[in-house]
Amino acid sequence: MRNIKLTIEYDGKRYSGWQRLGNDEKTIQGKIEAILSQMTGETIEIIGSGRTDAGTHARGQVANFKTNTTMALPEVLDFLNRYLPRDIVVKKVEEVPERFHARYNAKGKKYSYYVWNDPIPSVFERNHSFDYPQALDLEKMEKACQKLIGKHDFIGFSALKKTKKSTVRTIEELSIQQEGKMLHFTFVGDGFLYKMVRILMGTLLDIGSGKSDLSVIDTIFETKVRQQAGETVPSHGLFLDEVYY
Amino acid sequence: MRNIKLTIEYDGKRYSGWQRLGNDEKTIQGKIEAILSQMTGETIEIIGSGRTDAGTHARGQVANFKTNTTMALPEVLDFLNRYLPRDIVVKKVEEVPERFHARYNAKGKKYSYYVWNDPIPSVFERNHSFDYPQALDLEKMEKACQKLIGKHDFIGFSALKKTKKSTVRTIEELSIQQEGKMLHFTFVGDGFLYKMVRILMGTLLDIGSGKSDLSVIDTIFETKVRQQAGETVPSHGLFLDEVYY
Repeated sequence: MRNIKLTIEYDGKRYSGWQRLGNDEKTIQGKIEAILSQMTGETIEIIGSGRTDAGTHARGQVANFKTNTTMALPEVLDFLNRYLPRDIVVKKVEEVPERFHARYNAKGKKYSYYVWNDPIPSVFERNHSFDYPQALDLEKMEKACQKLIGKHDFIGFSALKKTKKSTVRTIEELSIQQEGKMLHFTFVGDGFLYKMVRILMGTLLDIGSGKSDLSVIDTIFETKVRQQAGETVPSHGLFLDEVYY
Repeated sequence: MRNIKLTIEYDGKRYSGWQRLGNDEKTIQGKIEAILSQMTGETIEIIGSGRTDAGTHARGQVANFKTNTTMALPEVLDFLNRYLPRDIVVKKVEEVPERFHARYNAKGKKYSYYVWNDPIPSVFERNHSFDYPQALDLEKMEKACQKLIGKHDFIGFSALKKTKKSTVRTIEELSIQQEGKMLHFTFVGDGFLYKMVRILMGTLLDIGSGKSDLSVIDTIFETKVRQQAGETVPSHGLFLDEVYY
């Protein structure tokens, strides 16, 4: 059997997230599977690198599927992009070894979160960034980023219930770039817990606006209590940029 | 009476253009007038710097209106942005001398046109750029831009019927910037005829793709015949960036 890897870009706005829920068609996975099944005449199930929440976008989600089709890769690419809705685009189609598994083999991920930091909202950025009109202390936020980088138990920064699995993760990069009125946060790590990026973002914004002190980060690492972290910021500012293998 | 100047940003997608048509509410002008009239209790008519077509966007459209309201300018700004739909934002509200007229006093305008030049479309840019998958000869297009810059009769590059008014305009800047797969065209001039930017763009793309020769520009300047120019490219790639006074 062939194993085919897809690199996918999507605007999450109209969808209830990546993961198919029964026969629900309002998921990215569901949309892609329906077209692949139509294309091959097989019942195709795709394995994503991980879920993305309702409303979250992707520039480089990765998935793979097994098939007996003899179609050439460029044909697969053309077929998908011809029949997918315009807010889902397959950027790359590759043949990979049969053992490749988009979720198990993922070594790390890169996310972006965008904050529009101005009292006047932006007509063109509003669907892909979080409007945050209050002034922010960037220097203090940079210090908070430095505290978060490294290997920590991030359970207090996640929406997970208690779990037997390890909640220790390593953040390799957490940086802030100012591009005019837009703040672009980049997160690179070996894995992120459920809603972790959005809760980290809420905590960073609380620190930047003066609502929380810098020390809240050490406190949450110690107590592991999610209530002390910031709110979960909206999903429409979040992008899954890349999956590393 | 006070004379108030507005600087306006809008996403043209949902609208049939700037100019109010009777009581039609699907125009930018209509939306803004309705809210200003509600706010002041007067019947407000706003004067735009010029029309924008259905689907065209603006980052810096300018309009003015006369009113007897005693509201402070920041209150006017807040009221407008509270009640306008989210795809129209007033960026600035200023008090101007009574003789200021947004259309008559405009000395020039700046437009941008965006072309996504790749076989794979972009999910995030698709509403604000024109998908053009064919390869383009940028050097040849740059030469075409040089030919268009200056003072010319642009009637052959417009959708105007014969007119007694002068159709001579001066293009001061016409440049192309490549930003990854996006081509950003900038047009600065003392004025642009009806659909002139979009017809110039169609002509530039014909030259870049090899469909037309560079000499077509001189021919159209001589013959003044619109049929030889390129097609009118779609309005959703066009932005009115700035109006100069």
